[in-house]
Amino acid sequence: MEKKIVIVGAVAAGPKAACRLKRLQPDWDITLVDQDSLISYGGCGIPYYVSGDVSDESELRATSFHVVRDEKFFQEAKGIKVQTRTRAISIDRQRKVVQVERLESGQEEELPYDKLILATGAKPFALPIPGVELDGVFTIANLHKAIEIRKRIAQGKVSNAVVIGGGAIGIEMAEALKDLWGVETSLVELEPQLLPCIVDWPFAAMLKNHLQENGVQVFTGESATEILANAEGKVCGVKTGMRTLEADLVIVAVGVRPRSELAREAGLSVAPWGGIRVNQRLQTSDPDIYAAGDCVASTSVVTGRETYAPLGSLANREGRALADNLAGIPTRFKGVCGSFIMKAFERCIATTGISYEAALAEGYDADYALTSPPDRAHFFPNQSVVILQLVFDRRTRRVLGVQGFGMMNDSLSARIDTAAGLIAAGATIEDFSDVEMAYAPPFSSAIDSINAVAYVAENLCDGRMRQLDLDRFLAWMEDMSSQPDWLALDIRHPLEAEPYVERYGREKWLAVQYEQMRERYQEIPEGKTCIILCNAGTRSYEVQVFLDHLGKSDSMVLGGGLNVVSRLEPDWYIK
Amino acid sequence: MEKKIVIVGAVAAGPKAACRLKRLQPDWDITLVDQDSLISYGGCGIPYYVSGDVSDESELRATSFHVVRDEKFFQEAKGIKVQTRTRAISIDRQRKVVQVERLESGQEEELPYDKLILATGAKPFALPIPGVELDGVFTIANLHKAIEIRKRIAQGKVSNAVVIGGGAIGIEMAEALKDLWGVETSLVELEPQLLPCIVDWPFAAMLKNHLQENGVQVFTGESATEILANAEGKVCGVKTGMRTLEADLVIVAVGVRPRSELAREAGLSVAPWGGIRVNQRLQTSDPDIYAAGDCVASTSVVTGRETYAPLGSLANREGRALADNLAGIPTRFKGVCGSFIMKAFERCIATTGISYEAALAEGYDADYALTSPPDRAHFFPNQSVVILQLVFDRRTRRVLGVQGFGMMNDSLSARIDTAAGLIAAGATIEDFSDVEMAYAPPFSSAIDSINAVAYVAENLCDGRMRQLDLDRFLAWMEDMSSQPDWLALDIRHPLEAEPYVERYGREKWLAVQYEQMRERYQEIPEGKTCIILCNAGTRSYEVQVFLDHLGKSDSMVLGGGLNVVSRLEPDWYIK
Repeated sequence: MEKKIVIVGAVAAGPKAACRLKRLQPDWDITLVDQDSLISYGGCGIPYYVSGDVSDESELRATSFHVVRDEKFFQEAKGIKVQTRTRAISIDRQRKVVQVERLESGQEEELPYDKLILATGAKPFALPIPGVELDGVFTIANLHKAIEIRKRIAQGKVSNAVVIGGGAIGIEMAEALKDLWGVETSLVELEPQLLPCIVDWPFAAMLKNHLQENGVQVFTGESATEILANAEGKVCGVKTGMRTLEADLVIVAVGVRPRSELAREAGLSVAPWGGIRVNQRLQTSDPDIYAAGDCVASTSVVTGRETYAPLGSLANREGRALADNLAGIPTRFKGVCGSFIMKAFERCIATTGISYEAALAEGYDADYALTSPPDRAHFFPNQSVVILQLVFDRRTRRVLGVQGFGMMNDSLSARIDTAAGLIAAGATIEDFSDVEMAYAPPFSSAIDSINAVAYVAENLCDGRMRQLDLDRFLAWMEDMSSQPDWLALDIRHPLEAEPYVERYGREKWLAVQYEQMRERYQEIPEGKTCIILCNAGTRSYEVQVFLDHLGKSDSMVLGGGLNVVSRLEPDWYIK
Repeated sequence: MEKKIVIVGAVAAGPKAACRLKRLQPDWDITLVDQDSLISYGGCGIPYYVSGDVSDESELRATSFHVVRDEKFFQEAKGIKVQTRTRAISIDRQRKVVQVERLESGQEEELPYDKLILATGAKPFALPIPGVELDGVFTIANLHKAIEIRKRIAQGKVSNAVVIGGGAIGIEMAEALKDLWGVETSLVELEPQLLPCIVDWPFAAMLKNHLQENGVQVFTGESATEILANAEGKVCGVKTGMRTLEADLVIVAVGVRPRSELAREAGLSVAPWGGIRVNQRLQTSDPDIYAAGDCVASTSVVTGRETYAPLGSLANREGRALADNLAGIPTRFKGVCGSFIMKAFERCIATTGISYEAALAEGYDADYALTSPPDRAHFFPNQSVVILQLVFDRRTRRVLGVQGFGMMNDSLSARIDTAAGLIAAGATIEDFSDVEMAYAPPFSSAIDSINAVAYVAENLCDGRMRQLDLDRFLAWMEDMSSQPDWLALDIRHPLEAEPYVERYGREKWLAVQYEQMRERYQEIPEGKTCIILCNAGTRSYEVQVFLDHLGKSDSMVLGGGLNVVSRLEPDWYIK
């Protein structure tokens, strides 16, 4: 039986659902409606278009075979009707019609449906400060804005930029401006760290350092209070609680909110924060209305709680599952794991599952293993250190999350993706110890970093290893008198350790090389708590086991070792 | 209670077990015995040492903190006794002693044990042809051989090399010789394809083409029958069934066998092919004797059958699990998935689980989805095509294996590793559709390639897509009269399709562009079986669905499209 399907929103979830549905039910009448003229684009590619990495905006709207996905394409190639510049203004659920407005003519019209799909996406959160409406202030709301930003830069009109918001889009935009165009760029983030709620603070801090090394000024824990105009009414700066930053371009990227007014006004169940509630079939509280993409409330497969995950990849997967259900192929969209990755200059940062901080807040008996292994065989020429953390629940041994910071390549992606598959399946630490990563020296270590971090978690969980939290170590470094009984036991090579012994004195910083520990352990004074230090933490654990065996059980290992500290406190670290 | 542990073999599994056990039971007396003088080395790194990528052999024996793992290191840093140049010659299980011979002195001695660990590794399979003992003929049996090979090359003594054996080591050695040293290199493989029993023939064929593009002559389906000597008794060539190849260096890499004589003579249970049988605790048929590494028979987590997986990464994981069990931490080593990856010049080839061919042989109702997606967002500058195949069981929908061929980066590694975790957990096609890969344009597509290949598998498994096997397509290309009713329906851009129409004529090769199919389908003649062709296979599937809907249900899709064919038959393909 032929059905009439109306889809509101034609960026990611909408077109995906439309195309899949048309393939499954070629007889059905499918109409895509969007208020914009540009549709079906890769929004996540906007920073790379602004940077110039992607040379033309049409590439973001093109298929892999270089055909632009416009109205004509959907109509002719896919058999899907498209109505752009058409805004859905209300839903009459009784009569099953969507009221739309033709934006060009102002005319209103009714579109009847058998099934309605809401793929209304998200809108940038509006910053409630003066000046946001000034010329030169942009959100990354759609392709038009991106085109305008790039035009201004390319015309040489931008010397100084301020990005407000330290999430993924803000950081990617800052890189685009600084790296490719040489614009003096500052980034302001209200929270004390970048990528708040996404990664734990040490990872955010390493990222911040790297941005600063690349010339982006980063101000965290600082709120923009006003956007300033010059005499001509154009933007000229941003005022924060601490300073005034010059700017002829301001990008506001302080997060997005689900676009769910239509759903709410139609009386559908909508979360207080705006996400349209759907079941695992992507069905809203009205069985004839489905929803997918950035407008829905998702469920975390880790915590089981409602969460918000506006991502193009999820929108596509949801759109497909939605179409399957409509077409009669029962398909569950089980929820989101929280997989996230981004490039930042020469580094990559990624996570899946939940952070340590989030795990504590959720009430888990959470702990974490922090490591700094090489990203491939340590003897292979282009190997480099990756910082990898595994968050777990001590009670159930379930892995709750994995996050990493490393060089800009796909190596971290391999570990995070693998972790995502395992976490979604409810894997324990032991499942991570077991996972069989493909091994050859150009790609990995004989003991893969994901296995290795699980081994550390096992040792922690079983009480074979005791670690010192990074923040406590850093506080002690700042003021050693705060913990008068602590002693750094530096087990690295003397060439690495001695400069610190010189700096802090043998009373505070004792160097006993790892290989000599079994013959020199008596040099360790009684009554001190040893903070065992090496580069990666691995040798430190061995030394801790050895000291425990001697009855000296008052030591702590700095997990991940000085490889982590050197990325957090580059000025302190002696190369 | 203090225990005496003797470990025979000190390359990978042995040292790993020793070190972990010493950390868990610091009081135990642990002795590593090895017939060689060089121990604890990364054998998988040998080709990279020969190539010069790894500058000194000691790097293969060094820790990540640059200390060489020799006898002294194990004794002083780890508290483990090491006896090198000591060969275990027999086990007296009644008295629990190992009889050893000191190779320097010829003296024999007894080492008593409470628990014995066999980590005797593997030995190269000896080629049963004349000339294998000649000067200049090498196996990759240990580091000494590698040192000697590199010395000869560095001295300029090698102009022509023949590698016998097209497995991973043979291919890696061929690359090392050709790429880094410019040695004219040929590779001879008895089986009709490279990497036999590891990947399916199309993947092996793409690899072969790439080796040939890089100047390695590859002869598959050809057996070396004799190694030839010159007047001075040095190697000068290799004779095969088809030709004689010049060679001043011959590397024989025709696989390895478990070194299990010691176990067999002691009456332990050993597989007919030589693998020492162990349970999931890594315990042999004698409860006081354990075994791990290249000498054991493993269990496939896919088929449940005995298999052989000699790999440094597995040896390490087995060694650790073994130590846990001995120390009282019950740990199961559940088996091997078959994860495999290798670099070959600018390409990478990888697999996990079992191949399509192996799945058929195992009696599965096997099928495969073959795709050729971009390895990251198709609009991102450095994206490239990856060939990705998913093998599944039609009856249970279980995924049995995934294999890929792509550019030399870690992108394929991410998909294979993720697949390995899922396959080991018994995942279905739908679990692969669901896995949440971390997405950002520099790393992946909004629809990740691993999700996409699962989507294709779903469509195949549910009968929504019918594909043509590559071998049947290639046979038809060779001789179109063999299938007189077939018609290529080329739906690519006319610039791509027209040269083929010119070559084969409109009767055999019809070009109807994808975007115009809905208005031009009537150009397709009746009574023909359409072979629908595009670059990646995706558009072809859409067109098949459309034609089915019109009642033209006699079409077949070429899975993976011409992206695959162009890598298999570069001479045929028109760029």
